[in-house]
Amino acid sequence: MAHDQRRVVRPYLQATPIAPGCETTLNKKARMSFSRDEATFASAHKPHDSTDEVMARAARGLIERLRAEGAYRDFLPLHRDNEAYPYAFTHEIEGVHRINVFCSNDYLGMSRHPLVLEAAEQTLSKCGLGSGGSRNISGTTVYHAALEEEMARLHGKEAALLFSTGYVANEETLGALAKLMPELILLSDEKNHRSIIEGIRKSKLRKVIFEHNSIEDMERKLQALPYAAPKMIVIESIYSMDGHVAPLADIVRLKHRYNAMIYLDEIHGVGVFGESGAGVAEDCRMAGEIDIIQGGFGKAYGGTGGYIAGRAELIDAIRLVAPGFIFTTSLPPMLLAGNLAAVRHLRQSNTERTNLFRNVALLKQGLLQRGLPVMDSQSHIVPVLIGDAFKCKMICNGLLGKYGMYVQPINFPSVNKGQERLRVIVSSEHSPDDVRAFVDALADVMSNPTHACAS
Amino acid sequence: MAHDQRRVVRPYLQATPIAPGCETTLNKKARMSFSRDEATFASAHKPHDSTDEVMARAARGLIERLRAEGAYRDFLPLHRDNEAYPYAFTHEIEGVHRINVFCSNDYLGMSRHPLVLEAAEQTLSKCGLGSGGSRNISGTTVYHAALEEEMARLHGKEAALLFSTGYVANEETLGALAKLMPELILLSDEKNHRSIIEGIRKSKLRKVIFEHNSIEDMERKLQALPYAAPKMIVIESIYSMDGHVAPLADIVRLKHRYNAMIYLDEIHGVGVFGESGAGVAEDCRMAGEIDIIQGGFGKAYGGTGGYIAGRAELIDAIRLVAPGFIFTTSLPPMLLAGNLAAVRHLRQSNTERTNLFRNVALLKQGLLQRGLPVMDSQSHIVPVLIGDAFKCKMICNGLLGKYGMYVQPINFPSVNKGQERLRVIVSSEHSPDDVRAFVDALADVMSNPTHACAS
Repeated sequence: MAHDQRRVVRPYLQATPIAPGCETTLNKKARMSFSRDEATFASAHKPHDSTDEVMARAARGLIERLRAEGAYRDFLPLHRDNEAYPYAFTHEIEGVHRINVFCSNDYLGMSRHPLVLEAAEQTLSKCGLGSGGSRNISGTTVYHAALEEEMARLHGKEAALLFSTGYVANEETLGALAKLMPELILLSDEKNHRSIIEGIRKSKLRKVIFEHNSIEDMERKLQALPYAAPKMIVIESIYSMDGHVAPLADIVRLKHRYNAMIYLDEIHGVGVFGESGAGVAEDCRMAGEIDIIQGGFGKAYGGTGGYIAGRAELIDAIRLVAPGFIFTTSLPPMLLAGNLAAVRHLRQSNTERTNLFRNVALLKQGLLQRGLPVMDSQSHIVPVLIGDAFKCKMICNGLLGKYGMYVQPINFPSVNKGQERLRVIVSSEHSPDDVRAFVDALADVMSNPTHACAS
Repeated sequence: MAHDQRRVVRPYLQATPIAPGCETTLNKKARMSFSRDEATFASAHKPHDSTDEVMARAARGLIERLRAEGAYRDFLPLHRDNEAYPYAFTHEIEGVHRINVFCSNDYLGMSRHPLVLEAAEQTLSKCGLGSGGSRNISGTTVYHAALEEEMARLHGKEAALLFSTGYVANEETLGALAKLMPELILLSDEKNHRSIIEGIRKSKLRKVIFEHNSIEDMERKLQALPYAAPKMIVIESIYSMDGHVAPLADIVRLKHRYNAMIYLDEIHGVGVFGESGAGVAEDCRMAGEIDIIQGGFGKAYGGTGGYIAGRAELIDAIRLVAPGFIFTTSLPPMLLAGNLAAVRHLRQSNTERTNLFRNVALLKQGLLQRGLPVMDSQSHIVPVLIGDAFKCKMICNGLLGKYGMYVQPINFPSVNKGQERLRVIVSSEHSPDDVRAFVDALADVMSNPTHACAS
């Protein structure tokens, strides 16, 4: 086949002309003379700084302020290696290469479980990298349908719906409720995750905030509302920065007494709690009382993505109106196949949960024995209160530099100022010796954080 | 090791007691008697329907209304097969098995390119399924760093930042601008994507809507604002439902004349336009004039995920304040490795683009020759106006049922009512005969949609 080489460079321009404004760019002279004209015009009419200069200054100001507050975030790029898990590798810290990760949400090591890898690999080579479209426009595959069915069944609900992430699931579902029921009142725990807060904001529904996990305050707030007014109590099963567990049975009591529905974020509960990994609601035998369960695959299931489960017509309505569900590329099939394998495995295996809670118990006991300021957690999330951003960062640097142990400092905006903490996560894959070594290291570093940091 | 079997069922409860409310669930009797009490209480105090009944009724009402309008969406679950691409398979339609997909955003077939599959496979087996954390908390890997560097370099910018999706990139970036510059005024094209609209809403910044692609209206609106007021013109390079291309050179002229910045959504442009696939701005030699470029991997790059690129301090500031970036699990490393391979391949290969635009030219010529209502598109997105939701669906059903060709009807809310259309996408992987056959089939079905539908 004879090819005209000139056509190869930008051949499509001949087939489909670019819009009028762009055609001028084919004529370099035209473009350059206009640029000079404009520069003259702009400099003659510029009594103030340009927008981009003002913007850059604002950005620098914000960055400097966060640095001054110790709230500037440096990300630590990790090399992961399934065979070394839960260890990872880094080249960022002098003298440290292999690090033991004590802050991953991959609680049960499912991200590298053989069944998960096999499912994802097979689907990758069969179906490719991405889905190629939104759910409505060629982006629904049999993997989407299968995972939605699985999650509905896991929670004993009629239907489920996938979202790009757990964050998006919260924001879009809560945001969409107003389209169904503009008079709905949302009662929201003061410690709810930012994705819930953003969803409530987006909904513009009337909201009432109650004290964290306080049945008394919840009841006071419910009593103050008319019985007939439609209400939804919005809570998490496990609060991600505190490890607190919601008093579900008491909340269900209030639901019936005050004519409310319950929206439950189970993102840190699924996989970890319940006999089939369906979360705290399953563990409490309360799943049937929850109207909307939100969960995701980015924590104990080792993958990525979020979902909701509930009554068929409600899930269908949200499917039809939530813009962040409709107008976005659907999740990659190979990822969904991995998620599904993890969910199915954890429906019948207790081994990982048993190991996780063995380690959690060891960790809590160790921290208490050492008199370290472990916070009141009822779950596998174990925060240690530091109360100062700089000190928090210093301790983490000490753990990393001296012991090769990685815990990320948790600062504002993840927690309030003065509540800075280490959020220690042991996984099911840590050995008891890993856990004991961590407690010893933390005790050492906390006894002299400045020294540790310098080392 | 001797195991107490009773401990295996719920062993973690002993290590970490669940919160008080949940403990009652261990006592079945207590739970059941409370349920009876509550049921009595609730029925005695229920002058109205319960919230969940009202909600379910509202959901059913919405579903029925959408059905009546022809805007109810049925998803078509596909079996993908890399070896059959661009064909896919379905079991949902009687008498049809193998279907030719004419509506995928995987414009260049990159989702199954050997280099992409190899990169994703290697990273999956090395790093596992998910990242295990948010970017700040153990979820930054060397793949995140590498892809951000690549995207910055591709666009000639100082820095780039990844988001879960292109949708999230728009919503969160625009939403976060107010935190940097509360006085910023956003000028937004009336046809901007929903993710942009949601971002502008979230920002609560002053917004001015201008007529689609109208330089005259844009200039009128800019003239009405003080020169010194900071402004940002928010546009797309290619409008996803119309195929229109923004007149970038003219918009850049306005930027300088009226002291504005430019935010450019290149999601349908990257990979497809420009000598290195950097989008329409590269093609127009205007990339240096764009302050924030938004793009993603879910279309021509065949993957998933979104990003922005721009000045280092601006990108850093958005990184530090955008909640939908901060509080979500980072993208899976294996997906990023696939995205990166696609980006790098399309930096130096024009073959896919050449094939795509050969097919686009064939399609447009064919539709015009047949006198079919092809809309005025300047890109690879080729809409055919139908103007009625039911007719649109009928034509698509006809194409699918009679010819095994899949085009999704585009209805409200993706386009305004009365603007219902087919959005026809040929990929670089279609043969010229595929394209000709599609034109023939569409002409046949449109000449008698009712007949086609029945067959």
